[in-house]
Amino acid sequence: MIEQLTIVGLGLIGGSLALALKQAGMVSRVTAYARRQETIDEAIGLGVIDSGSTDMGLAVAGASVVVVATPVGVMAEMFELLRPHLTPQMVLTDVGSTKGSVVAAASQAFGQLPAGFVPGHPIAGTEENGVAAAFAELYQGRRVILTPLDSSSEPSVSTIRQMWQACGAEVVEMGVEHHDEVLAATSHLPHMLAFALVDTLARMDESEEIFEFAAGGFRDFTRIASSNPAMWHDICLANRGALLAVLQRFSADLGELTRAIENGDSEHLLQTFRRAKGARDRFAEKF
Amino acid sequence: MIEQLTIVGLGLIGGSLALALKQAGMVSRVTAYARRQETIDEAIGLGVIDSGSTDMGLAVAGASVVVVATPVGVMAEMFELLRPHLTPQMVLTDVGSTKGSVVAAASQAFGQLPAGFVPGHPIAGTEENGVAAAFAELYQGRRVILTPLDSSSEPSVSTIRQMWQACGAEVVEMGVEHHDEVLAATSHLPHMLAFALVDTLARMDESEEIFEFAAGGFRDFTRIASSNPAMWHDICLANRGALLAVLQRFSADLGELTRAIENGDSEHLLQTFRRAKGARDRFAEKF
Repeated sequence: MIEQLTIVGLGLIGGSLALALKQAGMVSRVTAYARRQETIDEAIGLGVIDSGSTDMGLAVAGASVVVVATPVGVMAEMFELLRPHLTPQMVLTDVGSTKGSVVAAASQAFGQLPAGFVPGHPIAGTEENGVAAAFAELYQGRRVILTPLDSSSEPSVSTIRQMWQACGAEVVEMGVEHHDEVLAATSHLPHMLAFALVDTLARMDESEEIFEFAAGGFRDFTRIASSNPAMWHDICLANRGALLAVLQRFSADLGELTRAIENGDSEHLLQTFRRAKGARDRFAEKF
Repeated sequence: MIEQLTIVGLGLIGGSLALALKQAGMVSRVTAYARRQETIDEAIGLGVIDSGSTDMGLAVAGASVVVVATPVGVMAEMFELLRPHLTPQMVLTDVGSTKGSVVAAASQAFGQLPAGFVPGHPIAGTEENGVAAAFAELYQGRRVILTPLDSSSEPSVSTIRQMWQACGAEVVEMGVEHHDEVLAATSHLPHMLAFALVDTLARMDESEEIFEFAAGGFRDFTRIASSNPAMWHDICLANRGALLAVLQRFSADLGELTRAIENGDSEHLLQTFRRAKGARDRFAEKF
């Protein structure tokens, strides 16, 4: 049971967490920090939070758990704002899509990393943004990755684990660096490809006509290109190293495939397509 | 009204066409050519065709419209088999995803292109294959592109146009080369990217774990990597020129995006993502 949850950054992710914990009866009081009073008023109106403030000190006063749920590019600033108000009793987590950059920002802001700090990343979301899009079921059956640090205390890890489990999520742990590699491959790289593809086509002379004749496969393939540009800008730069490594690997593989098409290398083409279909079909069965 | 429709190649595409025309009361009799008698028996059992033969001459005897609905890699062989049996009264079309290669194959097989030949391409399909997956509604609201040739007679074009309209499709016309460019961009390139991405990840050391943490966006993005490898092998090689052109363009754009990530070029990243999101959102509204 969480006495007071404080959400820093009121959007889909933080709002859905608040709603899920309320629905599960796992939290007594939810407060929030937001930059704009209108966001707080909206969230109170929606029943997402009980109270909130544009003053960080007022927002987190009395918090047992603080969840930073802003885009990763803003977390350094939030940690700075939090620093004077964080007490040793507070457990602190975040929901950032990259973990190395968040840990570096926390380290920078706090000097010594607090024992209550447990970095986290719920693998969930929609193309919608904002607290109005929040819903209690967002984390049902989804994965949440925690990347506890050497500095993280056992009770803090346990609190954050139970918090996400109460939302219906499956919690797993891994190292910070490993998290960033896995996410670069499964999420950040696909987003780069979707953005790049749609942009390539949009810049072609006959772009209007091209989109006219795109079919269902194209719609599915490019859905993630509708994601928030500012958020993805942040993620790219925050996970630069791991993303560049996997981009390089992909570009080399695409180069090989291109040469196989050029040379009419049927063997290479069939092997690649079969291996990919096999992996995708196995993945689809599990999902 | 089509007196006798003959489907050459009994799969999802040909089978669904037969079912749609039957349901619309637009065809009196449907026959088919298939390599294996079991396919014919299955299609008769499913009510897709009335009769069929593994002998091309018997299958097309009496046909008013012949539709070649095999993978594009097999069409040259089908045209060869058809040649001795095609009469000037028969209207001939195909459903190939590439049009330049099909026209070249027809030209090779028939010498002079028949006035009854009208190349076509229904922009429809599922990840399912085979006649058992056929359903009458497949073409409802979908586009069918016809690429009539200088040799195509007006009445033939009209017959094929009405045939697809009877299935609920919207029929548009364009040139062969233009078709191949548009499809390379909207369909063939995305398939290459999806196959290449899944293959890149499948070949990484931690591939099992990577697929474990992939989320909904990844599932949508990679759905087309479950497509038929042999069919896509054929399409790649059949539309090699146009596909290589757009692959080159995409690779250059992805290279630029990679350099922007490397250099922390926020402006370039935001511009690219915003332009892509804008184009994708406009596309999604129309679709």
